[in-house]
Amino acid sequence: MINASIITIGDELLIGQVIDTNSAWMAQELNKIGIKVSKRIAVGDNSDNIWSALDQESIDSDIIFITGGLGPTADDITKPLLCKYFNGELMLHQETLDHVTNLFENIFKRPLTERNIKQAEVPNTCKVIFNKRGTAPGMWFEKNGKIFVSLPGVPFEMKGLMTDEVIPKIKSLKSLSPILHRTLVTFGIGESMLADMIQDFELALPHQVKLAYLPNHGIVRLRLTASGNDVDQISTILNERFSKLKDLVHEFLIADEDITMQNIVGKLLQQKNKTLATAESCTGGYLSHLITAIPGSSKWFNGAIVAYSNDVKESLLFVNQNTIKENGAVSESVVKEMALGLLKQTQSDYAIAVSGIMGPDGGTAEKPVGTVWVAAVSQEKILTKRFHFRFDRLKNIEVTALNALNLLRIIIKEKE
Amino acid sequence: MINASIITIGDELLIGQVIDTNSAWMAQELNKIGIKVSKRIAVGDNSDNIWSALDQESIDSDIIFITGGLGPTADDITKPLLCKYFNGELMLHQETLDHVTNLFENIFKRPLTERNIKQAEVPNTCKVIFNKRGTAPGMWFEKNGKIFVSLPGVPFEMKGLMTDEVIPKIKSLKSLSPILHRTLVTFGIGESMLADMIQDFELALPHQVKLAYLPNHGIVRLRLTASGNDVDQISTILNERFSKLKDLVHEFLIADEDITMQNIVGKLLQQKNKTLATAESCTGGYLSHLITAIPGSSKWFNGAIVAYSNDVKESLLFVNQNTIKENGAVSESVVKEMALGLLKQTQSDYAIAVSGIMGPDGGTAEKPVGTVWVAAVSQEKILTKRFHFRFDRLKNIEVTALNALNLLRIIIKEKE
Repeated sequence: MINASIITIGDELLIGQVIDTNSAWMAQELNKIGIKVSKRIAVGDNSDNIWSALDQESIDSDIIFITGGLGPTADDITKPLLCKYFNGELMLHQETLDHVTNLFENIFKRPLTERNIKQAEVPNTCKVIFNKRGTAPGMWFEKNGKIFVSLPGVPFEMKGLMTDEVIPKIKSLKSLSPILHRTLVTFGIGESMLADMIQDFELALPHQVKLAYLPNHGIVRLRLTASGNDVDQISTILNERFSKLKDLVHEFLIADEDITMQNIVGKLLQQKNKTLATAESCTGGYLSHLITAIPGSSKWFNGAIVAYSNDVKESLLFVNQNTIKENGAVSESVVKEMALGLLKQTQSDYAIAVSGIMGPDGGTAEKPVGTVWVAAVSQEKILTKRFHFRFDRLKNIEVTALNALNLLRIIIKEKE
Repeated sequence: MINASIITIGDELLIGQVIDTNSAWMAQELNKIGIKVSKRIAVGDNSDNIWSALDQESIDSDIIFITGGLGPTADDITKPLLCKYFNGELMLHQETLDHVTNLFENIFKRPLTERNIKQAEVPNTCKVIFNKRGTAPGMWFEKNGKIFVSLPGVPFEMKGLMTDEVIPKIKSLKSLSPILHRTLVTFGIGESMLADMIQDFELALPHQVKLAYLPNHGIVRLRLTASGNDVDQISTILNERFSKLKDLVHEFLIADEDITMQNIVGKLLQQKNKTLATAESCTGGYLSHLITAIPGSSKWFNGAIVAYSNDVKESLLFVNQNTIKENGAVSESVVKEMALGLLKQTQSDYAIAVSGIMGPDGGTAEKPVGTVWVAAVSQEKILTKRFHFRFDRLKNIEVTALNALNLLRIIIKEKE
């Protein structure tokens, strides 16, 4: 098995100004082609630390990925260091310079500065990985039988280079033994209860198959991973175990593929050729955002009304003023009226409505922070549910959205 | 200066299933009290790798933070390893057991399993850091003059333990030399042009003061960091340089504190006692989500209409059918009508409207993917602007939201 390390460079990672999403994405993509990431390291813009990370990681890993540290400003020191580490000299790379010049003249419409020109310099001991999406080129080095790949830290650029250039190149160089994954998604059961439920199954797994628990926000994903040289054989073993696992957890199973809750709901709606709209108070548009982040969701999503103020609940969702007065905005009757008002306003087949207190303020003894009412309705049916979450504001919003989508999933499935 | 390392444990980090947000948050909090994070490492659920990371990091760092690997399922091996590493034995911690029992009986309302009980076991060589938010206790170890703090990986629990217990304890133990930060926010200028603009300033900085560029989505933050033993002295130097820096970049300055675009806009609206609503097509509720994630935003935010379908644009935002037919949904006249319709519908003082093509599909030769029209309106004034972004769907959405908020900021400021 081929081992990889990922080194991310930048002071911004060590002061917490930036969250490292690159490593997770890279690990995922590498995993798919059978490369195991055994370590991820973040170091600052500090030559000694970068140098020793390169030394250290090339002991155990076959491929070392380096991201970041290639931007135009003075706090970036990575390129000169890589030059020294790989015994090279900085040389102007004409193709990159032409590209950078074109970007500034025709796209950014800003003057090209000395700093930008310097971005086209690369160590002459590397193979340049041409970066059509940005100004910093990727670099491919080899030393003592190990491969080092340096990529810009801008996620959009890094991803493009990995997909178009680096992954195909690695696949062509290395004979990779296949890894297969199958993932199922459960909802409404805790990690430890699930573990008890499938304890015997887990103990009886053959050595080629591994089980991982991936809990997040009330969803627990179970992933089986099989590896070995005979792809047909491991595929058969994997599928057989996967189908057994599905049976064991069927009561809580919401999908037998690695898919988000919003995609589950989207697929169901598309299959049935039905449309959806959301009426959001406490989630404030987050539900709608989750849905519209899916390409093509316009086929089944009409839109949303974020009714943050009571006035908007009344004027746009036709919630009766007295309903709010008598029950409060966070109540079963209000979310019902919101959902039904929305069905009417948007001519949709299904609607979700949510109202709650997300915190940190706004709670009362009777309705503490975290109290949420959700309604999912179709033209024929109404489902409502109360929740009480105990997280911070943002996590309360996220968990509410997930549970609202799940209620919708149930109402759609019930019609089957 | 006190150095720290952060070790995060879990296979899920190395296969990319989970994005590590914990490290960034921890680094931020540690930085505030004058502790420098010099390295972050992620390792899998593998005893050898965890052990060697502990060895390695305790060479250079004074405090080693460990998160994750404490969950109830079988793929977690961290606690037995910590027990061995710190020469202890696993013992039941009664206070934690009582707490876990109570959580299951009264909050989760699920039966307590053997696995849950095991979570109350800790090495007898640690001081327990009581975790009132979850089942896995934090642990504080000391060895060879170094401190090791092990915390659960659930962000909500880890943050609570850090804030309530760990940070106060570290502050009481260590005499920390102060670090001061001041950050300003610029918009509409690239990192390299900014660097050229303040090159002389940067070269002339005294040794106690460091400058960092933090670019993200068209915003570039500039942060000055000063450290030293005499807090009055470094504070004076820092403030003097900061005010000089503000002057140098004043043309692009949007805030002289570390604040998001949505908070800048929120503050302005609150100061003026004005309200806002958003009419969103391509951003699909993301603008509204950014705003409502701010606690207390209900004071100045009325709500949003996500008009994903043209029907909703017409029926809820009063966009003329012919306007769409003649100009297309992504056009200046449509966003104008959306914004004005929304003002009427929600009785707000300001409104933003956005319509665009976020990709990956839906582009045409005339209006390629990334084409966006934005309108910001008040009762008296209309501002519109066209953009052309060239990112992936999610980043197009994020950048659109940021630019729409900026257009609103301009229209509010113009009235001053």
